[in-house]
Amino acid sequence: MSGPLAGVMVLDLTRVLSGPYCTMMLADLGARVIKVEPPGGDDSRHFPPRTGGDSAYFMAFNRGKESIALDLTAPADRAIFERLLTTADVMVENFRPGVLDKLGYGPAVLAERWPTLILASLSGFGQTGPDRGRMAYDLLIQAMGGVMSLTGEEGGGPARVGTSLVDIGSGMFLWPGILAALVERRGGAPARRVEVAMLDSQVAMLEHAMMRAQAGDPPQRLGARFPTASPVDAYRTADGALVLACPMPRHFAAAAAVLGHPEWVDDPRFVDNAARLANQAALKAAIEAVMRERTTAHWDAAFAAAGVPCGPVRNMADLLADPQLTAREMLLPMAGFRVAGNPMKLSGLAAPDAASAPTLDQHRAALLAEFGA
Amino acid sequence: MSGPLAGVMVLDLTRVLSGPYCTMMLADLGARVIKVEPPGGDDSRHFPPRTGGDSAYFMAFNRGKESIALDLTAPADRAIFERLLTTADVMVENFRPGVLDKLGYGPAVLAERWPTLILASLSGFGQTGPDRGRMAYDLLIQAMGGVMSLTGEEGGGPARVGTSLVDIGSGMFLWPGILAALVERRGGAPARRVEVAMLDSQVAMLEHAMMRAQAGDPPQRLGARFPTASPVDAYRTADGALVLACPMPRHFAAAAAVLGHPEWVDDPRFVDNAARLANQAALKAAIEAVMRERTTAHWDAAFAAAGVPCGPVRNMADLLADPQLTAREMLLPMAGFRVAGNPMKLSGLAAPDAASAPTLDQHRAALLAEFGA
Repeated sequence: MSGPLAGVMVLDLTRVLSGPYCTMMLADLGARVIKVEPPGGDDSRHFPPRTGGDSAYFMAFNRGKESIALDLTAPADRAIFERLLTTADVMVENFRPGVLDKLGYGPAVLAERWPTLILASLSGFGQTGPDRGRMAYDLLIQAMGGVMSLTGEEGGGPARVGTSLVDIGSGMFLWPGILAALVERRGGAPARRVEVAMLDSQVAMLEHAMMRAQAGDPPQRLGARFPTASPVDAYRTADGALVLACPMPRHFAAAAAVLGHPEWVDDPRFVDNAARLANQAALKAAIEAVMRERTTAHWDAAFAAAGVPCGPVRNMADLLADPQLTAREMLLPMAGFRVAGNPMKLSGLAAPDAASAPTLDQHRAALLAEFGA
Repeated sequence: MSGPLAGVMVLDLTRVLSGPYCTMMLADLGARVIKVEPPGGDDSRHFPPRTGGDSAYFMAFNRGKESIALDLTAPADRAIFERLLTTADVMVENFRPGVLDKLGYGPAVLAERWPTLILASLSGFGQTGPDRGRMAYDLLIQAMGGVMSLTGEEGGGPARVGTSLVDIGSGMFLWPGILAALVERRGGAPARRVEVAMLDSQVAMLEHAMMRAQAGDPPQRLGARFPTASPVDAYRTADGALVLACPMPRHFAAAAAVLGHPEWVDDPRFVDNAARLANQAALKAAIEAVMRERTTAHWDAAFAAAGVPCGPVRNMADLLADPQLTAREMLLPMAGFRVAGNPMKLSGLAAPDAASAPTLDQHRAALLAEFGA
């Protein structure tokens, strides 16, 4: 059984991460994704880490795609591109606003010449508004989009979220627009344009932080601590750290027993959530004094057995050894590495071939033959 | 022009954040989302902040939905629910694995009685694997999914990403599965089951961190610093902080000039990227010594005018005053608050009514009349 997007053809003009991440997941779901690269290839073909002569970085975000290198300023290559456009259902691009127009494939041209094509665009600040021309990288938008102001140590400086959250998140916001437009078009409606900005995406992911600020309770950086419930935090162990989230009385009592201090439930400093919040530094020190004596694995097993909500702070090596992720086909082999699989589990859908990224221009001859260009 | 998902009916059994976030965006795109709540309502109806007698938190993630309260263990309410199931295209749930089966609406029952229904399930660890029954909250999965090990100060403890990244991200991974299954079903194919786990979702958002670990270069917490390029970091100003990302020679020269230290380009400590990486603490101190003299707004304007990639670290009040976000309809009025709008911009699609969340059971009479139940 092939993927649910079998028969859907996506022309992918995107580079580096946000766009390629979006189109990779469309390929995982069965879409045919043709990556149209500039003659020098996607910049990320030069990103570390490497595997043999290739970029493992590139391979990890371009599995399941075909590649053709086209110079969109050269007439012969434009003719090929336009043959592809005639068959494509979707075109995805993450050029800076205005570049597509300069190439002669702006929204108005596409709507006139290829009216059934769904155009999907990713950019830093969007195609509209006063900042539309401003430079955008993931880190800059993590700063401008507010999440860095909320991330880091209490009293310390703003910290970056430890992954390219904005690139990945904005690529994820493009999916429903593209697919909803496809649903509608299968019902006979005309194609829509879809447009997502990195900044908008970051702001849409802030949960209730803007509301808290407006309610007079502006959120602060708190490390791993929760502002209104205790204990909810990360605690150091002998070899790492473990998160506890046990403000409920029965959970706190169970945690105190596991830690060998059942008397804490009657200690005036820790007797209820309000007391623990008022004495959270003392409580953290008391918990860590015990937890530093044993390993994360010990505490994880002990708390879990006692029904206490907990989770070890796992690093990359821990993830790579996780039986759950293995059982879920979330660690897939790729040219000497294991990389993240497809988290969208659909009945009848096989895990993707993680090692199926194309070399630059690999599919030129086949595509020229197929599309008569 | 209505949304692209007009005519699509979603039965939404989800609670709190991950599921409601997913279905809110489906409603923003025009789907009809009927929220089936337990008699006491979604737990998040009691979450702060509040507005009048209602939870602003609940309202912010449930706009555009209808509500009916049903006790799925009571025969009369089950009959109503089953009338809804007969018409629905999609059912979304985030119960713990096994609960849906206990209610008598597990995947096998649904596939037999309502074969065109697309079932979409969200859970902490997934419906399969050894950890499927383990407790999952956003913070626990931030820990177990690896992102906390990468987030925080250099040499400090693991920090939480300053938003509920896992809840929101897993809700986002459900979209393409649901919509791809809808695309396929419109083409005549049978319905699929869609299933997403919070843990899988977190791991799929780690960019190249697992690969780096396997390449012998395991990523570390670095605050806001970039490991292989300098200067790329957040720098304190008189009233906040600003990110600079200017390792390229021409950008570093421009930044040094803006800071009044054009001689830095010839300083042996800072002469090239390798030197700056070796002396990054000295460089950071030198930059901050200057930047602490003036405001973030001053430096943002000065660096931007000089073509230096930069971004102010903005807090929630800054976002609420941003003309770009206003121009993008990303700050929408809701009962005395402004909340994040819909980042999925489609041609012909109006911004959602942010104040359109339902009261508990608001649509019971209308739904009973419409579905003859």
